[in-house]
Amino acid sequence: MQAQKWDKILTSLRPMFDPSSVAIIGASSNPDKPSGQPLVALLKNGYKGQIYPVNPRYTAVQGIPCYSSITEIPGTVDLAIIAVPARQVLDQMRACAAKKVPAVIIFTSGFAETGAEGAQLQSQLTDLARQHGIRVCGPNCMGIFGARNSLMANFAIDTLPDRVIVQDFLGFISQSGGFGSAVYEIIRDRGIGFSYFISTGNEADVDFSEYVAFLVEDEHTRVIAGYLEGVKDGSKFIEAVDRANRAGKPILLIKTGRHEAAARAAASHTGSLVGSDKVYQALFRQKGILRLESIEEMKVALSVLASGKLPAGNRVCIVATSGGSGVLMADKCAEYGLELAELSEETRHRLSLILPEFASTSNPVDITGQVVANPLLLKEALEIILGDPNYDIMILCYWALHGRTELYLQQLAQMCLASNKVIMNLIWGPEQPAIEVVNSLNDMLVPAAREADFAVRALSSLAWYVKRQQELRQPSPEVPVPPGAREKVQDLLGQLEPGSTLGEYRTKQILRCYGIPCTGEILVQDEEQAVQAAEKLGYPVAVKIESPDILHKTEAGGVKLNLSSAADVRCAFREVTGSARQYRPSARLAGVLVQQMLPPGTELIAGIGQDPVFGSTVLCGLGGIFVEALRDVSIRLLPLTFNEALAMIAELKAQRVLDGIRGRGPVDRMQWAQILVRLAALASDFPSIAELDINPLIATPQGIVAADGLLVLRK
Amino acid sequence: MQAQKWDKILTSLRPMFDPSSVAIIGASSNPDKPSGQPLVALLKNGYKGQIYPVNPRYTAVQGIPCYSSITEIPGTVDLAIIAVPARQVLDQMRACAAKKVPAVIIFTSGFAETGAEGAQLQSQLTDLARQHGIRVCGPNCMGIFGARNSLMANFAIDTLPDRVIVQDFLGFISQSGGFGSAVYEIIRDRGIGFSYFISTGNEADVDFSEYVAFLVEDEHTRVIAGYLEGVKDGSKFIEAVDRANRAGKPILLIKTGRHEAAARAAASHTGSLVGSDKVYQALFRQKGILRLESIEEMKVALSVLASGKLPAGNRVCIVATSGGSGVLMADKCAEYGLELAELSEETRHRLSLILPEFASTSNPVDITGQVVANPLLLKEALEIILGDPNYDIMILCYWALHGRTELYLQQLAQMCLASNKVIMNLIWGPEQPAIEVVNSLNDMLVPAAREADFAVRALSSLAWYVKRQQELRQPSPEVPVPPGAREKVQDLLGQLEPGSTLGEYRTKQILRCYGIPCTGEILVQDEEQAVQAAEKLGYPVAVKIESPDILHKTEAGGVKLNLSSAADVRCAFREVTGSARQYRPSARLAGVLVQQMLPPGTELIAGIGQDPVFGSTVLCGLGGIFVEALRDVSIRLLPLTFNEALAMIAELKAQRVLDGIRGRGPVDRMQWAQILVRLAALASDFPSIAELDINPLIATPQGIVAADGLLVLRK
Repeated sequence: MQAQKWDKILTSLRPMFDPSSVAIIGASSNPDKPSGQPLVALLKNGYKGQIYPVNPRYTAVQGIPCYSSITEIPGTVDLAIIAVPARQVLDQMRACAAKKVPAVIIFTSGFAETGAEGAQLQSQLTDLARQHGIRVCGPNCMGIFGARNSLMANFAIDTLPDRVIVQDFLGFISQSGGFGSAVYEIIRDRGIGFSYFISTGNEADVDFSEYVAFLVEDEHTRVIAGYLEGVKDGSKFIEAVDRANRAGKPILLIKTGRHEAAARAAASHTGSLVGSDKVYQALFRQKGILRLESIEEMKVALSVLASGKLPAGNRVCIVATSGGSGVLMADKCAEYGLELAELSEETRHRLSLILPEFASTSNPVDITGQVVANPLLLKEALEIILGDPNYDIMILCYWALHGRTELYLQQLAQMCLASNKVIMNLIWGPEQPAIEVVNSLNDMLVPAAREADFAVRALSSLAWYVKRQQELRQPSPEVPVPPGAREKVQDLLGQLEPGSTLGEYRTKQILRCYGIPCTGEILVQDEEQAVQAAEKLGYPVAVKIESPDILHKTEAGGVKLNLSSAADVRCAFREVTGSARQYRPSARLAGVLVQQMLPPGTELIAGIGQDPVFGSTVLCGLGGIFVEALRDVSIRLLPLTFNEALAMIAELKAQRVLDGIRGRGPVDRMQWAQILVRLAALASDFPSIAELDINPLIATPQGIVAADGLLVLRK
Repeated sequence: MQAQKWDKILTSLRPMFDPSSVAIIGASSNPDKPSGQPLVALLKNGYKGQIYPVNPRYTAVQGIPCYSSITEIPGTVDLAIIAVPARQVLDQMRACAAKKVPAVIIFTSGFAETGAEGAQLQSQLTDLARQHGIRVCGPNCMGIFGARNSLMANFAIDTLPDRVIVQDFLGFISQSGGFGSAVYEIIRDRGIGFSYFISTGNEADVDFSEYVAFLVEDEHTRVIAGYLEGVKDGSKFIEAVDRANRAGKPILLIKTGRHEAAARAAASHTGSLVGSDKVYQALFRQKGILRLESIEEMKVALSVLASGKLPAGNRVCIVATSGGSGVLMADKCAEYGLELAELSEETRHRLSLILPEFASTSNPVDITGQVVANPLLLKEALEIILGDPNYDIMILCYWALHGRTELYLQQLAQMCLASNKVIMNLIWGPEQPAIEVVNSLNDMLVPAAREADFAVRALSSLAWYVKRQQELRQPSPEVPVPPGAREKVQDLLGQLEPGSTLGEYRTKQILRCYGIPCTGEILVQDEEQAVQAAEKLGYPVAVKIESPDILHKTEAGGVKLNLSSAADVRCAFREVTGSARQYRPSARLAGVLVQQMLPPGTELIAGIGQDPVFGSTVLCGLGGIFVEALRDVSIRLLPLTFNEALAMIAELKAQRVLDGIRGRGPVDRMQWAQILVRLAALASDFPSIAELDINPLIATPQGIVAADGLLVLRK
């Protein structure tokens, strides 16, 4: 999408988020009902624009004049909230159109989430919105809350937070109203300030991606978080995420549906198409989106982000007041991918001068229980360790009840704040005192937590985020595609029916156009040609049947390998054609393929796939038993850079195989990555390719070569 | 170890845990010092036995007569606490010996944890203890706390808990004093009653296993938990665990050192030998020990155990008041191995009658936000779902602030208590109200938690524990070993030097004695014999060099496969002997092995290993690229049952390969398990076997056969 189109979208969303006037259609005087809450909350919290209740049954609601229809309101209306039964919603939308209302939030349930009839109603709603250029949030949503402008256009949040430690911080978008408002309460409770809270509902018009893009533009949003079950338009979402990355605003998502049972539940919950979680995971990795596994982890990550510091790397130093807790923390760090740093000799020496003999001066540093008798020990040790340059993150574990005076904590906090490192205070202890210490520290913008798992996971995610964003900003080498590739493939594919399948010979023709090496081969029609071809290619050769109707050639007896004489080739020609006719008498035979035999190598696979939400994907993996037995493949979306292709190779589990085992040399990762980038170029030029499999792609000492191929066009 | 020996150990520990008199050597009047705290705490908390301070500097401490030496105490002393500097400890031990004190707790640091000199001192301490039959806890420990008898023989806990909801419940053993006392505080805070808390220190005499066995016998302990870095005597630990299993007392351990860096830190922390974490993990699985990953998870598991109910299976039903939280929870259940149950038609129908149209009546059940308007909805839905027999565990997620009255919670709790299912209340919400709800429920012995990860992990662990304990009680089929196996192998191994290596031929002789099928083969000395052997075995054959000095035969050019004529065999004989002489001129050649060629099959491995702590282990895995590239092996300790052997096969990642792929039939798991049990019998009969590798063990359609073997004796 062009920047211009985004500008238009963002402009169209402004009345929804910063309206000068709000009408509430179906307004009631009962503040406990969704139709009553916004009016009361707008009044109570000092919303500065005009407020217009609309309900033919009243002349006034909450002491404010009430209109029988939106069209009767004297002034302009920027935003209308619709809170009437489902069957009246379309009429009210028409009234909004007549009134030229630019934005509408629809609380009402009873649309796509209830089945076919509701989906039909929702489709009419969408049509109306598009026809009149009205931007719609919902239906079946809890609405929008804005902190700066006291926009209480929702029925989840009715009070401005009384205690905000970081202002203008978090924009939150939720595809579950109930869950989202729960997350809001939990995070607000910690003093994190929200710019906007958005419950998206069924997304009949404005969708998750547009809300993301809006928050990227919003100057009062520094971090974007959300609860996501699935997006409907993958490429739009990618564009929104790219905008966030360019603006340097992190996106933190809780995305459900990782496991199949949960994905089914999510699908029934929103009625929306839920793409493959594997592809979401690939997207998150590729684009540097922080995927968090729980609200607790999100809380910790936000407390680090709120402190304004991010880890410069993933080397961690653990400082504990008990040996056991340090060791446990070291286990957690290893588990979640943080690296235990090695402290400098000087640091260790200086520590040994102040710590008892049985302390550990190496990482994890164990201050020992001596801190009970001498609470200052922790601070003294900290002063020494903070000077060490060999780590990026410190995890400081101590007992909530040690030296617990306000002054002591304040001094500790000052030390943390003065350092340029990310310092996570991990507080042990009985619930209440531990919570008090954690909250006091967080109030001073010093990251603190009680649960090791969440803290270490969040730190590891953030370190990854920083690294990933740096990588995304680095230029990646260009991988050229041979000139005229697109045109040549256009000629080869252009005439074909949708849903056509291409066999090995024609698939390899296409691969060669994009510069992907394939085994040398010649398509022949008789024995004589076969022998000539073999002599041209050089013995030994393979002979394979070529037919669009025979996809599993080996099964059909259509493959003969390692033929080393003319006689063998003749015999093989007869055998493969005979077997093919017997296997499927109706099969169209395009001829017989005479092919070079490759030296032994490592079997790889590469290919193109299609995701219903995100479109073309590129995948790679180890071939043979690995892909069949272990499903060890990695996936990326388009566009694919060379660096990213290297990253997807590095993600495979079977790295040892790639490094060369059993006497085989290492696989040339650079060449493999080039092939993947070229496949991505092919996929991007021809979205009509539903599936392309290169299996096997063989890594020989002379290079990587496609030894077989199959291509299927979209139906 | 015989039962008798354990009886003796347990009897010897009684004075340490239930002393009629306690002497404190080095007693001081400062209650903040380790030497002062026990006396004050014993007095304050109503310890009923005699208390004798010992310190030549005082005539009285805390108003109690003080003795200059333990030998001067008029009465008998059951337990002496030693809290004097390290250099005086041995003298005090001698005084205890003179006084015939049966049990001693040594707080003092400065022993094995500080290095070689300290280790030397500790070794003298151990000798003294053994010589005089004194049982010693420590040194470098925090001591022992007993709740029933107010035994404050420690410097971590100085007050009896003021609020205990479950009496006589938990015995806790910690190899880290600081960490252990932290866990004590955290768990006590939740109202869980401790029978004993034990800080083991350096374990110069009494070790972790003996404490476990003591708590198994102790009638006031229902559950045993601990913090473990490593045990010194593996078989003793296994015996203690077996005793706990027989008594039906669960063991919950936080075991650190899962990752290498943490294991190193643990080793330096305790100065003890830390065995391979893989072997610990195997032991925990094999014996049904609950391994918990954090204090939080332990807290949740204990709250379930305290409720007196355990999950009968792993089918879970999720009931939530928001769709999003239900989906998130379904993801967690799938991740941690709980199965989403399918509710009955009747349940779903009855739910549809009371829930709104947009609710979900299938699992995860979504009551919807309707519960805000009608808090009774949750209880009504619950009544229906509780009648469904199709699940074992319910996770009930609700918002802390909904209908939060004491009465409402009490009614909900009553429903949970009345059900025979395990019902975990998962409470969402801002910190304080959520904690209040969780604590109220736990106080009523209703399991409740705030963090989904910990709750689901703990439930999954407990469901596994129940299943595992049932499996352990089931008889496992006997796998017979051929008669005379032991004697025959004794003849083969008896004459060999420690550290000897046996090649393929002799290793297979040993395997055959224990009923493990091997390729047919004949050891020959010349070409003529080779041809005769080939004809006897039937072509095709393989020819291999046999030498104790050539372990990697293929590398040495010592293997020729697929020989199908006498001429080929002669030629191969010359080639392998020639290559071997060239490869290692000094190699002793035992001859040449003429061997049957096996039909193609799936390559497996099986073997015997040694762990420094737990002794012989049996391992299995897939061969070839799988073991080299993925380290996909599973391990068990002795003794190994047939059922357990099946379980270890089922644990391998590459299950698809075992089920048969690429046209191969499935691997015969029964036969493989038999082979593993026979290997275990061999390992058990001959602990002198340091290593035995069968690689490959080939699964052919005709059965599983060892195709190569290597055996190394312990040095």
